Amino acid sequence: MVDTTEERQLREQQLESWGRLLAGLSHDLKNHLGIIRESGGLISDMVEIHGKTLDPSLADRLLKAAATIEKRVAIAADLLHHLSSFAHRADSPESSVLLGDILREEAAFLQRFARMKQVELQIEAEEDVVLITSPTLLHHLIYRLFLFALEQLPVGKTLTIAVRKGESGGKICFYAGESALDRELPIIEYSNTLQAIAGAVSMQDGQIILEFC
Amino acid sequence: MVDTTEERQLREQQLESWGRLLAGLSHDLKNHLGIIRESGGLISDMVEIHGKTLDPSLADRLLKAAATIEKRVAIAADLLHHLSSFAHRADSPESSVLLGDILREEAAFLQRFARMKQVELQIEAEEDVVLITSPTLLHHLIYRLFLFALEQLPVGKTLTIAVRKGESGGKICFYAGESALDRELPIIEYSNTLQAIAGAVSMQDGQIILEFC
Repeated sequence: MVDTTEERQLREQQLESWGRLLAGLSHDLKNHLGIIRESGGLISDMVEIHGKTLDPSLADRLLKAAATIEKRVAIAADLLHHLSSFAHRADSPESSVLLGDILREEAAFLQRFARMKQVELQIEAEEDVVLITSPTLLHHLIYRLFLFALEQLPVGKTLTIAVRKGESGGKICFYAGESALDRELPIIEYSNTLQAIAGAVSMQDGQIILEFC
Repeated sequence: MVDTTEERQLREQQLESWGRLLAGLSHDLKNHLGIIRESGGLISDMVEIHGKTLDPSLADRLLKAAATIEKRVAIAADLLHHLSSFAHRADSPESSVLLGDILREEAAFLQRFARMKQVELQIEAEEDVVLITSPTLLHHLIYRLFLFALEQLPVGKTLTIAVRKGESGGKICFYAGESALDRELPIIEYSNTLQAIAGAVSMQDGQIILEFC
């Protein structure tokens, strides 16, 4: 006794509310990081200006600590930038997207899973492709295929996810150089997801190909 | 031609993948903040130790900047802590939760919406209630009711969201002191959500009551 329309509406609302909450949170975090960055910069400036009155080794260590702060703030701000884009995507059930944008956004999140498995993750998106699709569903599907590819890779390998132009659309390829990805794809599980984003998954020459037309 | 079971499964998978990606991201951000905190602490320590060799006003300003960094890191870490809990909830479609925990977690996100409207948000959860429900659906519903209450409040008011023990369960009340919340509730929109979390929404004496049994 479930109304499918209601069910779908609820899912969209739920993702939308997640998206808004996360967008707000990442905005707040950015503000805090901004103030941290300013304070770090202020410390560097003060040490530079008063450098001559300071013990050189103390000045050096203060500058190093301030530089560490600024470096880490920059990395964290970059992650938050991706979180923002990711969160804002949830507001649009279907929209025109660049495959490369979607992929780069998500890679910020995927890097840590790769790192934990000691696999290097590379993104190639020089050829970008415009697509009308559900960005959150696409994110979800990339995540699943990424995990599936990662599972098959031994430590120390590189996994590349690449956007390529197709004949009548575009595709995302997951490949690992000499290590062929050849385990059978769990296609059925994705049938409905794929239907919704109008893509097709296949294995070709040790690559996982997600194709859109 | 939509399979409802598949649809529901997809929604659960999607929320789960969001949850994992976010949990990973918040973990990474915490690490960066940890290093920023350490560097800030190091700067304070160095200034304290070498205080006598420094110009007092320079030492003072360095300590202030380091204190600002440590304060902001603490606030950001607290937000991330809530993001983690929030993200981990998405892994469990249905589980035993404390209403107060759910509410406090979400309040970290809601504060900024209240602040933007210049409304003060207060959370009361001294009486906590255990409930078996879908935490993400509950989060979603609290968010919608919060927005609905917020819309009705003039600038400068306080909105309180409180957990109370009920006769045979618990309830969450949204109220605003002398400003009665009395606009008609958009009940229908929530019917399916409510069914899923087994709650009931009503208006009583200018309060919005979300009741569970």
